[in-house]
Amino acid sequence: MTTSAGTERPLAHTRVIDAGSYRVTVAAGLRQQFARVIAEAAPAHHYAIVSDDEVAPLYVEPLTLALAAHAPVSVHVVPAGEGHKTRDTWARVTDGMLDAGCGRDTTVVALGGGVVGDLAGFVAATFMRGVPVVQCPTTLLAMIDASVGGKTGVDTAAGKNLVGAFHPPAAVLADVETIATLPLPQRRSGLVEAIKHGVLADAAYFARIESELPALLDADPSVTLETVARSVEIKADVVRADEREHGRRKTLNLGHTLGHALEHVSGYALLHGEAVAIGMVLEARIAERLGLAEPGTAERIQGLLRRAGLPVARPPELPVDSVVDATRLDKKARAGRVEYALPARIGAMAGEDSGWALPVDDQLVHEVLA
Amino acid sequence: MTTSAGTERPLAHTRVIDAGSYRVTVAAGLRQQFARVIAEAAPAHHYAIVSDDEVAPLYVEPLTLALAAHAPVSVHVVPAGEGHKTRDTWARVTDGMLDAGCGRDTTVVALGGGVVGDLAGFVAATFMRGVPVVQCPTTLLAMIDASVGGKTGVDTAAGKNLVGAFHPPAAVLADVETIATLPLPQRRSGLVEAIKHGVLADAAYFARIESELPALLDADPSVTLETVARSVEIKADVVRADEREHGRRKTLNLGHTLGHALEHVSGYALLHGEAVAIGMVLEARIAERLGLAEPGTAERIQGLLRRAGLPVARPPELPVDSVVDATRLDKKARAGRVEYALPARIGAMAGEDSGWALPVDDQLVHEVLA
Repeated sequence: MTTSAGTERPLAHTRVIDAGSYRVTVAAGLRQQFARVIAEAAPAHHYAIVSDDEVAPLYVEPLTLALAAHAPVSVHVVPAGEGHKTRDTWARVTDGMLDAGCGRDTTVVALGGGVVGDLAGFVAATFMRGVPVVQCPTTLLAMIDASVGGKTGVDTAAGKNLVGAFHPPAAVLADVETIATLPLPQRRSGLVEAIKHGVLADAAYFARIESELPALLDADPSVTLETVARSVEIKADVVRADEREHGRRKTLNLGHTLGHALEHVSGYALLHGEAVAIGMVLEARIAERLGLAEPGTAERIQGLLRRAGLPVARPPELPVDSVVDATRLDKKARAGRVEYALPARIGAMAGEDSGWALPVDDQLVHEVLA
Repeated sequence: MTTSAGTERPLAHTRVIDAGSYRVTVAAGLRQQFARVIAEAAPAHHYAIVSDDEVAPLYVEPLTLALAAHAPVSVHVVPAGEGHKTRDTWARVTDGMLDAGCGRDTTVVALGGGVVGDLAGFVAATFMRGVPVVQCPTTLLAMIDASVGGKTGVDTAAGKNLVGAFHPPAAVLADVETIATLPLPQRRSGLVEAIKHGVLADAAYFARIESELPALLDADPSVTLETVARSVEIKADVVRADEREHGRRKTLNLGHTLGHALEHVSGYALLHGEAVAIGMVLEARIAERLGLAEPGTAERIQGLLRRAGLPVARPPELPVDSVVDATRLDKKARAGRVEYALPARIGAMAGEDSGWALPVDDQLVHEVLA
């Protein structure tokens, strides 16, 4: 599917979403225009492409050739997988950029999934106190979640994303054709965030995902394009209203308090999306038990996730106590009770009066997990 | 000089300087009020004090006791010295905070010199994507330079401050009495930045330092207080006009392009201020050679620095070629020629039309170093 640098075919549909200080461009085949758009959005004297060893063989060479028409390019390939989203990998990429002669006038290009985006974003945030990053997400999950909102970071032994920075990208470029090359479990995992966006903000969008699920699982380009675009709109709206996560942005944590805990206890055997799928169902149950959510909310979320082939219950090998303990490592744990983002119904969240974050007793979490 | 927590004696003179988003408070004896001011400026559920093993024995205990009245306190002591301003130390402090149960609602308190301020600032900038830091500088250099302006970071093998972030403090609290306990070479080193502020912005201030030099070298509290306050005003003015160093803030680099190179080649045997003193004299000579500075500017700077007991010439054991090569590692090296901040005369900088950064040929740098 790659073409040589310099030849651009016109794109049938392009969606451009304003995300505040930057724009998100979504199209099928957009990768042939990456270099031109990067050079316009973030002109630099050096481009440092950061990718992983699964994505790099597919897309790095044409991008390197095309960017080289604008400035020197260095390529920094890291091992794929969340297990490498560490301070060590971050330090190695940084040192590689210093060795390659990168200065303050460098732009980092993140080419890959969410791990590459978070890692490369944190490299950019901290390289000589901050250089621009252009996010080129190649997975559905990264397109609709990680690449929008400016969160960057790495994991430590104590938990995920505990070290990081807010560093909004100069631009986000999403070529939905790259999703088709992903294995099905990863595409499913990405759909979880789209479903989450429907739950938290848009019942009609949730219903559209319900009806278009087969086309989405097939990575149909035009259905995927519209889904990515709508999810990016929803996320960008929320983030623009609350970049630093003091309020409404917390609604994006739906499914994530329990999701992160499950992922952590599984030793990252669960994919992020799988863990969040389970977390979203369980957190919707918590919301129903607290009388915050309409009855049936959890059931409908569970139905869609199950049809998408996603897990919806705690895997029995993950002990309840360990999961509850792991929620306490969450960044959202404030002075005592762990806080959750909980739904009110499909399309709306609960807790506006309490800053969208609701403390929940461990006892109830225990019961729902059991 | 320490007193037990809770007893506050009234302070004779307090100077408060507005530095934009935060305030810098300067007084003799202010450390007895640190906890109260920290709790007001940056209320938190946990205070993480970061200090080094030279400063901690002097000041950590009373501060810990006083802060404990507001929230739990953890203390993180690092080895003193620029050699420990590394990613490893940063990771250790971060992990120590995670072990101590610090969450997003933590405030970092940096208690020490410039190394502690830069390191603790970078910890705060990256801890769970950013928590507040209160800078409590205990050296003259840190009071008038490192703690104002929001630059944080650590060194790598390739050079100083190559990894870092802009993270303005919630407040800066400077107790000028702490300067009196510093060894004379460190006090001299701090004076270099004050002299630099005179050169770049205020001829009358430069003249005042010339006349009050003996009192300053004695760490006389009232003269020191006024000097710290005037230097903070100058630096805060410059930074407020240009936080991200796209323009006027570059004038603060006076003496630093060559200073950093000399420091690096010396293996940090030169104190930062000593290296900048030499750099400032040599860069003033470059400016005179280029016809940018009034004749005699370098001579007057050199005279004051020499009276203060500071070095003013390249130590012969540092090879000219190595120093010139090291200037190319500087973050300010853009696409070819290295850029310098150069004086026009005592009290004013050259290069307003070129964004305050002037490219200089290596050949001229060679000649001035030789």
